[in-house]
Amino acid sequence: MNFSIIKRTLGWILIFEAVFFLVPLITAAVYREREFFDFLMSMAICGSLGGLCLIGKPKNNEIYAKEGFVITALCWIVMSLFGALPFVFSGSIPNYVDALFETVSGFTTTGATVVDPNVGVEVLPRCILIWRSFTHWIGGMGVLVFLIAFLPLSGARNMHIMKAESPGPVVSKIVPKVRTTAKILYIIYFGLTLIQFIMLICGGMSVFEAINAAFATAGTGGFSIKNSGFADYSSYIQIVVTVFMLLFSLNFNSYYLLFRGKFKEAFTIEVRTFLIIVAAAMALVTLNVFASGTIESFGGALKHSAFSVASIISTTGFATEDFNLWPSFSKAILVLIMFIGACAGSTGGGIKVSRLLIMGKSAGNEMSRMLHPKRVKRVTMDGRVVEDDVVRSVHSFFIAYLLIFAISLLIVSLDGESLTTNFTAVSATINNIGPGLDMVGPMGSFTNFSWWSKLVFIFDMLVGRLEVFPMLFLFAPGTWRK
Amino acid sequence: MNFSIIKRTLGWILIFEAVFFLVPLITAAVYREREFFDFLMSMAICGSLGGLCLIGKPKNNEIYAKEGFVITALCWIVMSLFGALPFVFSGSIPNYVDALFETVSGFTTTGATVVDPNVGVEVLPRCILIWRSFTHWIGGMGVLVFLIAFLPLSGARNMHIMKAESPGPVVSKIVPKVRTTAKILYIIYFGLTLIQFIMLICGGMSVFEAINAAFATAGTGGFSIKNSGFADYSSYIQIVVTVFMLLFSLNFNSYYLLFRGKFKEAFTIEVRTFLIIVAAAMALVTLNVFASGTIESFGGALKHSAFSVASIISTTGFATEDFNLWPSFSKAILVLIMFIGACAGSTGGGIKVSRLLIMGKSAGNEMSRMLHPKRVKRVTMDGRVVEDDVVRSVHSFFIAYLLIFAISLLIVSLDGESLTTNFTAVSATINNIGPGLDMVGPMGSFTNFSWWSKLVFIFDMLVGRLEVFPMLFLFAPGTWRK
Repeated sequence: MNFSIIKRTLGWILIFEAVFFLVPLITAAVYREREFFDFLMSMAICGSLGGLCLIGKPKNNEIYAKEGFVITALCWIVMSLFGALPFVFSGSIPNYVDALFETVSGFTTTGATVVDPNVGVEVLPRCILIWRSFTHWIGGMGVLVFLIAFLPLSGARNMHIMKAESPGPVVSKIVPKVRTTAKILYIIYFGLTLIQFIMLICGGMSVFEAINAAFATAGTGGFSIKNSGFADYSSYIQIVVTVFMLLFSLNFNSYYLLFRGKFKEAFTIEVRTFLIIVAAAMALVTLNVFASGTIESFGGALKHSAFSVASIISTTGFATEDFNLWPSFSKAILVLIMFIGACAGSTGGGIKVSRLLIMGKSAGNEMSRMLHPKRVKRVTMDGRVVEDDVVRSVHSFFIAYLLIFAISLLIVSLDGESLTTNFTAVSATINNIGPGLDMVGPMGSFTNFSWWSKLVFIFDMLVGRLEVFPMLFLFAPGTWRK
Repeated sequence: MNFSIIKRTLGWILIFEAVFFLVPLITAAVYREREFFDFLMSMAICGSLGGLCLIGKPKNNEIYAKEGFVITALCWIVMSLFGALPFVFSGSIPNYVDALFETVSGFTTTGATVVDPNVGVEVLPRCILIWRSFTHWIGGMGVLVFLIAFLPLSGARNMHIMKAESPGPVVSKIVPKVRTTAKILYIIYFGLTLIQFIMLICGGMSVFEAINAAFATAGTGGFSIKNSGFADYSSYIQIVVTVFMLLFSLNFNSYYLLFRGKFKEAFTIEVRTFLIIVAAAMALVTLNVFASGTIESFGGALKHSAFSVASIISTTGFATEDFNLWPSFSKAILVLIMFIGACAGSTGGGIKVSRLLIMGKSAGNEMSRMLHPKRVKRVTMDGRVVEDDVVRSVHSFFIAYLLIFAISLLIVSLDGESLTTNFTAVSATINNIGPGLDMVGPMGSFTNFSWWSKLVFIFDMLVGRLEVFPMLFLFAPGTWRK
């Protein structure tokens, strides 16, 4: 294990985090909030610690898959440990475990909150609110992707880190150079965020509201700065957010391909499948809430169903309606699409459509092999063969994911909440969504869980965002053995 | 597709079913119940239809994997369609879909009932009760295994049918000849049932009660002839049933190995893992229900926890206590072990311990390959390599199983019951357990579900018992294409 390179990367992450604190710091200055000094202190701590880590030259620059996973896991943990400081310093979330939960929920773009729904988020200072939203934006595309884009690091290092941090079964490099790929991704990300910001401003949102909403949508995060979420905004705003939640759940490669005029290539089988699932879920939920009389007007049913489906499948977690009160069929659809999640290479979470496609196709091939043992078919996606090791790693991902899900469910059940609460709470965190049903419904919160359950959720959110392996390898003795 | 051989096998199944009807027929004669004639009529229908199917010699005896799956699925469906007749004729369960549900639940050893809990099963005539229990016994080891054991069929045909009907990822033939294997299995099955029957008689049960209980335990079925299940029996009876539920969840090969003096070989990794899971689940549930004060005495907590854990993991579904009222942690454990299920080659259902072991080991190997790409490890069980096509077919099984689970959950949600009811109802049927939680808890029933949900459950019970593929292939167009 190359410790010197790990230390160095952690140093850079802390330096970057210190820079990120500028956003809430400036906000505090603009609104003359006393939390300015809390952010200044957090910044000083991160900056100096980061500086310390950068002293001395690394002995060697060699890095293998192992280091890639460990660096990624450690960076996310360290970033969260320090990102929680302003919440504690300012007294907004005085308990450190709670503050860590909120920060991890931010960076992993989960959007689950420990803020008591009876108090609401509107009492929080604006600099704290924007820090919550900004953590979504940083975590959405990945802080290490950011680092790769803006630091001159070696190619091998970049590739291993990119592999470990990017969502999806394979990293498809848009261009041969990893660094350029990272830059292009951030440009698309920034551009889409900006367009959404402008469209929200056009809808009458204040600049502050629009920045927060755009950050949280872009990262498919879900923290809201209103107690009522998006319920009190105009239909225009709700529709804009619906569309952008979906846009941020698509594979960013597709945007690059669209930009290059390759329309056919942009609509990969994953994107097409995702859009079909979204359309079907929206149609079924709309019919169900309308026919059951839960929402009386068809337009309203369509609007709220579309918003909720987009919010859950994109793993954002915003709400315009308390879908906890919807009929069982709609709730079942929402629970199922929690697991599907977004496309690979997006900012969304969940299992990812491409993984499900690979699993489904390999199961189909296997069954046809049972009937016709001589016919050997391989899994293909968009006409290209998916390598066997990718298929196998998708299976391992899924098995490890379900195992972590089961163990988490057991531990949090000790708190005594209902099965629906526990099941959807684990699902909402491991899939990086935010809200679930019952106690953790869109109008609820995670505040009443015990500290040990919150630690389980923190682990699950990181497992979800980093897609299982980096977190598992961090705790596997084999990783640290020579 | 060799239709003539399918017709012939179906004919034999109907003949056998006519013979099976002798058990309730004799019971009706002994107790002078007027349902005697309903069974006589059912017998006549099955016998004559079966006879018709056997007319003419099959053109060829060739049979491939495809035919094996189709024959198995069709036999189970036909057997259930005709097995439901006495319920309808006698008016015990007048609605045919309900009667079919009850019969499929019997043959698949699920034990879920449509009998209204407010009416109870005790009003049913004894011949109907014993038919319910007897279907468990027939379905437990498999009616086709029975057919193989007692009919002189060709070897290839036997192997393909055995593969399709036996539970577990691979069929381990005890002896080289399939027919002898089938005979040995039935001897062990009959022997164990007899021992349990005698032990129950020794505990003061009446002969009729003991026969029913032994049939339902042996098949890991779960139909009970008392409204209160096993709650009102003595601790001795409850403990005997607990032990036998576990005995019938072990791989029957192990009994043969024990009998041959091969003690070490009998305790395979699957058996050991199963016993560890059982012990851990029993310990945790006991502590939880005792510490929470749900059951006040430690002895009582231990007894009821052990019974419930054995009942669920063996996929029997008997109850001594309404575990629906237990704390969340205990319920979470019970829900998780619903999916684990019994050992391969037992009469129990669920995913099976060996499948979970194969999946876990292959995931572990895959992860170690990610860290050390040059080290290639293969999955082994008890020192023997598990072939890649077995690993792949386990993955396909699991994916297809989850897909059917998800679609079933969606459809039954249309009935509007709670998420916990729907989730555990699907789990209780696809894993062949019987009771779930909430409305389908141990003191509840499936009676309030709509007819379409009942059809879904019927499908799921067959999918569970036949382990997915035969039912899927039956509906796959590729099976029927030339």
